[in-house]
Amino acid sequence: MPKKVLTHSWKNERRSGRTSRFQAMKYVPREEIKTRISKVKTLMEKASLNGAFFHYKIDYYYLAGTMQDSILYIPLEAEPILFVKREISRARRESPTEQIVPFRSMKDIFAHLGPMKRVGLQLDVMPYNDVIKFKEFLGNAETVDVSPLTKKVRKVKSPYEIGLMEKAAEISKKVYEKVPELLKEGMAEIELGGILEAYAKTLGHEGLLRVRSLNYEAYTWHILSGRTGSIVSQSDSPMGGLGLSPAFPVGASMKKIRRNEPILVDFGISYHGYHMDQTRMYAIGSMPDLFVGAYEACREIHYRVLDKVLEGAISKELFEFSKQLADKMGYGEYYLGYGHHKVRFLAHGIGIELAEFPYIAATHDYPIDEGAVFAIEPKMVFPKQGACGIENTVIIEKEKYRILTDTDERIVIV
Amino acid sequence: MPKKVLTHSWKNERRSGRTSRFQAMKYVPREEIKTRISKVKTLMEKASLNGAFFHYKIDYYYLAGTMQDSILYIPLEAEPILFVKREISRARRESPTEQIVPFRSMKDIFAHLGPMKRVGLQLDVMPYNDVIKFKEFLGNAETVDVSPLTKKVRKVKSPYEIGLMEKAAEISKKVYEKVPELLKEGMAEIELGGILEAYAKTLGHEGLLRVRSLNYEAYTWHILSGRTGSIVSQSDSPMGGLGLSPAFPVGASMKKIRRNEPILVDFGISYHGYHMDQTRMYAIGSMPDLFVGAYEACREIHYRVLDKVLEGAISKELFEFSKQLADKMGYGEYYLGYGHHKVRFLAHGIGIELAEFPYIAATHDYPIDEGAVFAIEPKMVFPKQGACGIENTVIIEKEKYRILTDTDERIVIV
Repeated sequence: MPKKVLTHSWKNERRSGRTSRFQAMKYVPREEIKTRISKVKTLMEKASLNGAFFHYKIDYYYLAGTMQDSILYIPLEAEPILFVKREISRARRESPTEQIVPFRSMKDIFAHLGPMKRVGLQLDVMPYNDVIKFKEFLGNAETVDVSPLTKKVRKVKSPYEIGLMEKAAEISKKVYEKVPELLKEGMAEIELGGILEAYAKTLGHEGLLRVRSLNYEAYTWHILSGRTGSIVSQSDSPMGGLGLSPAFPVGASMKKIRRNEPILVDFGISYHGYHMDQTRMYAIGSMPDLFVGAYEACREIHYRVLDKVLEGAISKELFEFSKQLADKMGYGEYYLGYGHHKVRFLAHGIGIELAEFPYIAATHDYPIDEGAVFAIEPKMVFPKQGACGIENTVIIEKEKYRILTDTDERIVIV
Repeated sequence: MPKKVLTHSWKNERRSGRTSRFQAMKYVPREEIKTRISKVKTLMEKASLNGAFFHYKIDYYYLAGTMQDSILYIPLEAEPILFVKREISRARRESPTEQIVPFRSMKDIFAHLGPMKRVGLQLDVMPYNDVIKFKEFLGNAETVDVSPLTKKVRKVKSPYEIGLMEKAAEISKKVYEKVPELLKEGMAEIELGGILEAYAKTLGHEGLLRVRSLNYEAYTWHILSGRTGSIVSQSDSPMGGLGLSPAFPVGASMKKIRRNEPILVDFGISYHGYHMDQTRMYAIGSMPDLFVGAYEACREIHYRVLDKVLEGAISKELFEFSKQLADKMGYGEYYLGYGHHKVRFLAHGIGIELAEFPYIAATHDYPIDEGAVFAIEPKMVFPKQGACGIENTVIIEKEKYRILTDTDERIVIV
């Protein structure tokens, strides 16, 4: 027989300031959630939706503050209801949503809800089979993809979100400052990536990066040295890296880092679900002139595009402008990839997903508004030789921009 | 102007033995792919399918040997065609599929294909919007979920797959042997997790674990100490851990590891996409008696269930048998979780997904066949105190089982 189990109380779990025991675990403030819900409801009303279901944890974290196994329902005319499968006591601590109820099957959910006419579902990410099951319960109600609404709201970051992203940027900067100390000739790319990631975790990095895609996985440990920087892969990125196997064909590899080759470190951080993205260049011994010149060109594009963002230029104009700059400096062929491997974006918004709105991209047709946070990453790829580039995560404030990842931008030679 | 770019040849990339440069990157052998395709076609014929599309990279890796951005089409009466968006030259090196053609949009795919009557799609994972777009091209063809077919074929592992899993097990064993060396009083759970993961990567671990789910992410760094072992989370697991934030509420946390508490290390490995899963127990100073006894009970359940697997018992009988054993030993209340947090499986099949067929679970109604590889994990959770348990990845061979993760099973005290 097991000994008697202790039963000390967990009642004080939700302490003042909404932080958890054991660590500075911050819960999303009630006011923050209220504002987000109200913005989504405004868009729901415009789209003539009676209500909307959120199945994808990225979005219900945004709207309810928890990632416990849940489905969030937001009726247009009433308060949200969070249906939780597991684990409801944690959901209650984490989420300021007033109505939190347990459920086991969809039947339990629909027992709570009245008939609907036009309902939002996250049709961009929900698997087909799940939508079909849901539709059976919805009867004749019309279903509409609700994801564009949350994507739009998430485009502008609140001061609370920016606070978390500043913390993520602090972690990122510490990681980059650590690189020169760790970088040694003959170490494998993946070895450096692993150690950096382990270090980042001690600072609060959560290890996984999130992307809204069935097949694309974001790798934290994107360390490319010499010619692996010129290897393209399945990811929509100017360079992909070799990776470890055909099952993981992206990012750092077993290739040993050598002297006098460009070393590109593109490392993603997640803190309380908020991502940070940064790239810096390193070399052991010396950096080949080709890459020194190309890197300076990237920096010039980076800053000149940011100036133009403040002038109110629209996304696709910014992208075109950056291409013209690269052309003028003689790098057109290598800018954002070579040959048919060029990518059609220069910057991606960043938040609770690694890539979200706004983008600076060939086909995007909007200006970059105040409150936008994005990672701008001009990069050059030279076939068979390697890659270089810079990446900063930047916030657009009133008539100015602010670089969150403000690590020294000089190439580091060790 | 950039300097002239070198142009040394990549022609010899596909060398004898189908391994890549830089490292021992193994490509899936042609014969292996041929056998898998033939098994899937047999099931397609039974299901009266004219053809099937595979969008999910896990399955097209299984059937084509590459995870480059692709869609695989298998016609019942002809050879498979791999449509590749990015990166086709890598796909051609990695995949033994004869017909590999580039595509940009779905229109390009359907230009290649004739009219169809009844077509398989991966409806369990494909987002609803993607299926709808696909259906527009399919016209009046009936669509059927093809995923159950590949899941069934993947249930039995080939000698080639077992070879890769043995290699994954070697990595896993080395990681567990490293724990006593690294474990120090006062280090955070996540710190230990990070270092173990960094070490595993130098041995070929790929860092991410794959699960077939929209919301569930598998964390490599599952290190639970003392009472974090009793914290349940969104995952379908007897214990979840605290994690780092409400956005990452699972796995290792910032909690410091202390003396005389149970330390559960449940660490997943991926090698060439093949997973390995293992759990061992550690303590600094001493292990409380409660957990010593419960751990021995877990080991007894583990071995007695394996004996019963060989007798041909069906899944749900095995699960029930394990519950009765736990009851008899006085651990019924804590076995596989406590209260309403109990899970309803004891073992999960494992392969290119962390959890796949066969399961030993309350509702599964089949015997465990020869060639099955699964992770069996009897665990006990004591509210507010912690968790313990054992986990091994086991292969069922002719009239015997073989434990791949055969690290010493004694509790390690440092």
